[in-house]
Amino acid sequence: MINKLAIFGVGLIGGSLALALKRAGYCNLIVGCDTDPAQLRRAVELNVIDQFTSDPSEAVAGADMVVLAVPMLAMESVLQSIANNLAEGVVLTDVGSCKASVVAAATRVFAGMPPRFVPAHPIAGREKSGVESSLEDLFVDHKVILTPVTQTESTAIDAVTRMWEATGAQVKTLGIEQHDLVLAATSHLPHVLAFSLVDTIAETDYVDQIFQFAAGGFRDFSRIASSDPVMWRDICLENKDAILDALHKFQANLKELELAIMQANGGDLMKTFVHAKTIRDANVMKHRVETE
Amino acid sequence: MINKLAIFGVGLIGGSLALALKRAGYCNLIVGCDTDPAQLRRAVELNVIDQFTSDPSEAVAGADMVVLAVPMLAMESVLQSIANNLAEGVVLTDVGSCKASVVAAATRVFAGMPPRFVPAHPIAGREKSGVESSLEDLFVDHKVILTPVTQTESTAIDAVTRMWEATGAQVKTLGIEQHDLVLAATSHLPHVLAFSLVDTIAETDYVDQIFQFAAGGFRDFSRIASSDPVMWRDICLENKDAILDALHKFQANLKELELAIMQANGGDLMKTFVHAKTIRDANVMKHRVETE
Repeated sequence: MINKLAIFGVGLIGGSLALALKRAGYCNLIVGCDTDPAQLRRAVELNVIDQFTSDPSEAVAGADMVVLAVPMLAMESVLQSIANNLAEGVVLTDVGSCKASVVAAATRVFAGMPPRFVPAHPIAGREKSGVESSLEDLFVDHKVILTPVTQTESTAIDAVTRMWEATGAQVKTLGIEQHDLVLAATSHLPHVLAFSLVDTIAETDYVDQIFQFAAGGFRDFSRIASSDPVMWRDICLENKDAILDALHKFQANLKELELAIMQANGGDLMKTFVHAKTIRDANVMKHRVETE
Repeated sequence: MINKLAIFGVGLIGGSLALALKRAGYCNLIVGCDTDPAQLRRAVELNVIDQFTSDPSEAVAGADMVVLAVPMLAMESVLQSIANNLAEGVVLTDVGSCKASVVAAATRVFAGMPPRFVPAHPIAGREKSGVESSLEDLFVDHKVILTPVTQTESTAIDAVTRMWEATGAQVKTLGIEQHDLVLAATSHLPHVLAFSLVDTIAETDYVDQIFQFAAGGFRDFSRIASSDPVMWRDICLENKDAILDALHKFQANLKELELAIMQANGGDLMKTFVHAKTIRDANVMKHRVETE
């Protein structure tokens, strides 16, 4: 149970977390803090949060759990705004898509990583953003990855784990570097490719027909290209090295496929397509990945 | 109504067409012809087709509608195998994903494009293939694009239109070249990117974690990378120029995004992401593209 939960950034993720915890009866009081007053008022109207304030120190006063759900580049300034007002024993956590940069920001603000700050990342989202898109079941059966550091206290890890489990999520642990590499490949690069594909198509003179005759392949791509631009700009800046690494490997692979198409080399095309299908099908079986 | 329908290639698309027409009571007799006897026997067991034969001339004898649902590279040899056995007035059509190459194949076989051959392409599919994956509602509310040529007879176009409408599909017409360009961008390129991304990831040493923590973006990509390799090899070979054109435009766009990430140029990233999101959201509204 949480007595007072303070959520910074009441958008899709912050809002969905609040809703899920309300449904679970897991918090006595949920206070939202955001730079957008309209978003905060809407969050109270929608009964996503109980109260709001635009004053960070008021938000964290007496809180036993503080969640940062702001875009990556806003993490450090929010941490600065609350650093001197945190109650004894409060647990801090975040929902950022890149973990090394959050840990670096916290380390700068607190002159060392606070032992009760548990970096976390729920693997859930929608192409819609904002508090009005919040869903109380957004995290059900989704994974939340914690990336604690050596000095992170186990009681803080337990508190964050229990909070996420109350939303229906499955909590897992990964190293910071591994998290950032895996997410670069599984989430960040696909979003970059999707934005790029839709941007490419927008420049053609048959963009209208493309959407009119959109097949499943393009529908999936275009859906994720509708994600929040600020969130994805920040991710590209904050997980730059891992994304570039994944992007370069992808570009090299694509270059080989391009060559096979140019040379009408059916053998090489088959080799790549069969390999991709085999790996995908085997891993879907193994990890029971949702496929529909 | 069709008296005798002959379907060449009883896989996902041929099988789903047969099922949909049976449900609609639109054919008296559906005969399947395929190079795989096991597939044909299974199709009869599943009540997808009424009869089967491995003899193309027997399949088309007395048929008033012949549908080619074989991989792109098999179109020409199937046309050759039936060219001398077609009844007077029979309507021919296909379901191929590329239209210029089917028209070229038919033109070679018949020494000119037959006036009762209506090139067609249903925009529907699944990542699963084979007759066992057939669905009777696969085409409901999906588009079928016809690409008739100047000499195509209007009675043949009407017959193919009515057949597809009986499955619940919406029939549209496009020029051959335009079809191949639009489909290269909306379907063929996304599949190439998906195969390439999964193949890239398969080479990393954290492939296991990638599938374990697969987020929505990657799940969508990996789903289409599970499509039939033979079908997609053939499409890459048969719509080579349009796919390469789309691929080159995409690579150039991606190169610019790569530069923006390398230079940590948040302004350029925002510009691209906002543009892609704006175009996508506007077109989804306009064309009511299915988004879930």
